[in-house]
Amino acid sequence: MQGDNLQKIKKKQKFLDILSQKTKTRFLLKKKSEKEIPKRKNSPLFNHVPEIVIQRLPIYIRILTKIQKQGKLQISSNLLGELSGISPGIIRKDLNYFGRFGKQGSGYQVIELKDTLKTILGLDGTWNVGVIGLGKLGDAIASYTGFTNAGFRIVALFDTDEKLHGKKISRITIQSLDELKRSVKTRNIKIAIISTPSNQSQDVANRLIDSGVKCILNYTQSSLKVPKEIILKHVDPISTLQSMAFHLKNYHLNK
Amino acid sequence: MQGDNLQKIKKKQKFLDILSQKTKTRFLLKKKSEKEIPKRKNSPLFNHVPEIVIQRLPIYIRILTKIQKQGKLQISSNLLGELSGISPGIIRKDLNYFGRFGKQGSGYQVIELKDTLKTILGLDGTWNVGVIGLGKLGDAIASYTGFTNAGFRIVALFDTDEKLHGKKISRITIQSLDELKRSVKTRNIKIAIISTPSNQSQDVANRLIDSGVKCILNYTQSSLKVPKEIILKHVDPISTLQSMAFHLKNYHLNK
Repeated sequence: MQGDNLQKIKKKQKFLDILSQKTKTRFLLKKKSEKEIPKRKNSPLFNHVPEIVIQRLPIYIRILTKIQKQGKLQISSNLLGELSGISPGIIRKDLNYFGRFGKQGSGYQVIELKDTLKTILGLDGTWNVGVIGLGKLGDAIASYTGFTNAGFRIVALFDTDEKLHGKKISRITIQSLDELKRSVKTRNIKIAIISTPSNQSQDVANRLIDSGVKCILNYTQSSLKVPKEIILKHVDPISTLQSMAFHLKNYHLNK
Repeated sequence: MQGDNLQKIKKKQKFLDILSQKTKTRFLLKKKSEKEIPKRKNSPLFNHVPEIVIQRLPIYIRILTKIQKQGKLQISSNLLGELSGISPGIIRKDLNYFGRFGKQGSGYQVIELKDTLKTILGLDGTWNVGVIGLGKLGDAIASYTGFTNAGFRIVALFDTDEKLHGKKISRITIQSLDELKRSVKTRNIKIAIISTPSNQSQDVANRLIDSGVKCILNYTQSSLKVPKEIILKHVDPISTLQSMAFHLKNYHLNK
């Protein structure tokens, strides 16, 4: 019983210590708040950041942009969590990879955090993008106006179909694939989107890599083989639907 | 020193035990090879399978389907790894969640593995799907013929634009959203794809859920808020491009 009491006293003391620490910190931060800037970790390359963390940063940027438009200057990790569907604990951990953001009690500075995340992701400038394959899907991609605000500009369109050559989508002229290499060089295109039929995608990918493209976003149903140094992602709604069907079958219909 | 020796002997014994166990298993498998069917783990719900594993199953199905078309009956985890870009070790571990597939030396039975994975994912039948929002992107989705072979059939199209009502895409008539609730019920639609403008997506999601849809594939730029029991995925090429830009900036351009 005495041991129990002792433990209770110790716990209470610990609680008071933490409380006083928090109050101190808050006080210090209040004084320094105007000068606070995020401190980056040593490595500018962020080599050890898990891919899943990188994938969440655009979500934070999207929400911060929205919040900024609403005129808010600060956001708590709780609200950021509520708006993103990601738990506040994960958000704090994610941001910790890149430095020290936010202050106990007052949350994150919206503009500062957004700008820093954009710089980290390489979105402080604009990347030129080429689209190959202008069927219905490619047309929808090329017509989409959301790329520009997100850090990307579609500057070149290519298709094998001669009937499309010379036509324009959003003021960009569709060219023959013979123009690919020259265009990638002159327009400094590092990122390409493939929306060709599946059976053309590997050949197109090879030609893109040969031309100097480093990033490929594959919108076709085929998996692509590319050298290790090429950054490749697959927009694959069929697979997404199929993995959703698993949950539908195993959870909902068994209730 | 004596303790060390004792441990060494124990280790050796353990190794011999495992080896003998393996040889026995291999022998048993060889004798029973024709009758072997995958043994599922106890829970038919697969409650503890990580999401990332579920997401890889469609990739295996796609490759197995291709291999089957080429007339091959068996595939090694090494070849499956080469064709999918996923390491053979991960593939074996993934499949282990669902039972015991494959045999030492001869690999996996292509048709059996494909059919079992399809059953696990709930793709042994066909899911009816509705598409809401028939702009360029929705049109491209509704026109896409690849859904049927993958276990999905688009059976209903909806748009708020009156001018589109009555028009057809791939023989399906575009309806008013007023028809949503009735159509979801009568056509037994559990899965819906939202390809509306971003500012309409949350309202459409609410109406879908109210109508009885359980799975939503969100093709818009907005994050959606849905109740916990709703299965929600986001096809978000902007975020994908943004996470690719990170690698482009931090690896390629720093070389």
